[in-house]
Amino acid sequence: MSLQKLTKLYLPAIENELRQVVDSASGTHFAGLSEMMTYHMGWEGQGAGAKARGKRVRPMLVLLTTVAAGGKWQQALPAAAAVELVHNFSLIHDDIEDNSSLRRGRPTVWKKWGLAQAINTGDAMFSLAHLALLRLDETLSPRIILEAAVILQQTCLHLTQGQYLDISYENRSNLSVADYWPMVRGKTAALLTTCTELGALIAESNYETRATYRRFGFNLGLAFQALDDYLGIWGNAAQTGKSVASDLLEGKKSLPVLYGLEQDGDFATRWAKGPIPPGEVSKISAQLEAEGARTYTHNEARRMTQQALQALEDAGPRGDAGEALFELTNKLMQREI
Amino acid sequence: MSLQKLTKLYLPAIENELRQVVDSASGTHFAGLSEMMTYHMGWEGQGAGAKARGKRVRPMLVLLTTVAAGGKWQQALPAAAAVELVHNFSLIHDDIEDNSSLRRGRPTVWKKWGLAQAINTGDAMFSLAHLALLRLDETLSPRIILEAAVILQQTCLHLTQGQYLDISYENRSNLSVADYWPMVRGKTAALLTTCTELGALIAESNYETRATYRRFGFNLGLAFQALDDYLGIWGNAAQTGKSVASDLLEGKKSLPVLYGLEQDGDFATRWAKGPIPPGEVSKISAQLEAEGARTYTHNEARRMTQQALQALEDAGPRGDAGEALFELTNKLMQREI
Repeated sequence: MSLQKLTKLYLPAIENELRQVVDSASGTHFAGLSEMMTYHMGWEGQGAGAKARGKRVRPMLVLLTTVAAGGKWQQALPAAAAVELVHNFSLIHDDIEDNSSLRRGRPTVWKKWGLAQAINTGDAMFSLAHLALLRLDETLSPRIILEAAVILQQTCLHLTQGQYLDISYENRSNLSVADYWPMVRGKTAALLTTCTELGALIAESNYETRATYRRFGFNLGLAFQALDDYLGIWGNAAQTGKSVASDLLEGKKSLPVLYGLEQDGDFATRWAKGPIPPGEVSKISAQLEAEGARTYTHNEARRMTQQALQALEDAGPRGDAGEALFELTNKLMQREI
Repeated sequence: MSLQKLTKLYLPAIENELRQVVDSASGTHFAGLSEMMTYHMGWEGQGAGAKARGKRVRPMLVLLTTVAAGGKWQQALPAAAAVELVHNFSLIHDDIEDNSSLRRGRPTVWKKWGLAQAINTGDAMFSLAHLALLRLDETLSPRIILEAAVILQQTCLHLTQGQYLDISYENRSNLSVADYWPMVRGKTAALLTTCTELGALIAESNYETRATYRRFGFNLGLAFQALDDYLGIWGNAAQTGKSVASDLLEGKKSLPVLYGLEQDGDFATRWAKGPIPPGEVSKISAQLEAEGARTYTHNEARRMTQQALQALEDAGPRGDAGEALFELTNKLMQREI
């Protein structure tokens, strides 16, 4: 129950920090820019609320790691806000790049305000993310803040590298499971790695402990994406807020699909023939399952979750926050599998 | 001749610094991402060369200000690379937002590689810009680097605020010259202000001198944009690398257009009726000129150039680099007027 208790304590502080940062970009002339950001963050507009905001997993991970490593969570709030804003900046741009109309059950920013404003709003949120981090200034030494700034910015570069692969895979047919990991390391694992590393850094952990927390975040990220890919085909639309089986309709090269291509069976033959229409989705997902992709993806997600839990144990996290990190990991992995 | 001499000295070092930063994002899996960046920077691909690279005005401004304020130009190379990469990141995204097919006479990144890759490549360059700045680490104190990082990131936020206004003006007809300045302060003046401020900061100037260099960069930026708007209607396409009179065709709310709308005469009446086709451009630009917009824009550009020169004089810049800053300002303003 540590997770529930600490979520109740941290979440309002995270939202408050996020709002302070986002509000810093408002002003007489820029109310419309703020509106797009507060909409996307789930605070304002049609469908605003807890569901639209998402779970704020990343900032929770920063605060919990900070405390589990012996630091104060209040000190880490700027870093927590920063990772959540980086995540949300990337969602605004990803929604354009993936041509997605819905995000958490609501129209995406580009769908509501058009392409040009959406690209620019993502850019604004990107700047705000890094400005949020630089607010660490108030409590930590310049040397640590600079290190944190480099870590977060390198992660943003890794995000774009992963996204580059994801987009470029859409025009390639000769892919295998080996192509999956460099993409997911960038797209998902990089930011979760940074969440846990920033926590350990702010708690002023030694080098070895930081590396162990990195390993925890990294494996959590890989497991998280593998599970997301699983849910993208065999998930429940009401729960994910996305269209049913949208990954197959969009031709997304997810882990089950890459596994299926590697089998070079009926699925691969059908896939090579071109886009899958809505009417064919259930047949194709059954075919994928028959060729072992569902079990494989399930097992990979579970294997990496075990690796994450092992790393977490090795890091020796303390107290309630440590317990909450174990809970969080287990909970994330029980979304649907 | 100081400008020519110092350009010969600084420019190869700027290109070298830029390439080091951009190359840091390459790697086995990401050659295609690097290719888009090296193309955009004018180093590789069809039409690569000095013309495609542009004049590198912003990094030159950083180095010249650093030296004119008493610092060493070599120390400022990371900041010089950073501002040029911020500028180029914003060009990649602006070209999408403005639906521009050509940049410096070459196809734009989105035109060559598509929307999704272009947005993502801009994001990658955005990260690289800030990583470039953090390389100041090697020569300056953490306190100064942090201050520089905040200045540059605030500027990026201002860029998006200016761009937000620019895009939103496209759907408004009740605009006047007063709406122009908040847009241009963000879109153009913010980054030039930062170039001169970073130079003074790296040279460890006192607060007053930094403020005076800021004022120089700010007025230079306003003058530069006013002139750009002038050239966007009365300029020579071969010189600007853009389509002839593209600003009128695209309905861009530039300074001459806003001046014309404020006159509420024949131009404003025609403008309210909808888009201007290519065949009508020369008639409309003549109409704008007859209503005083050409003279007004010319005078505004000149007035702000005078203010920039005055601020520069007040800053008391030293030696060859100081002389070169005067030359640079005069040269920028003599592009076509």
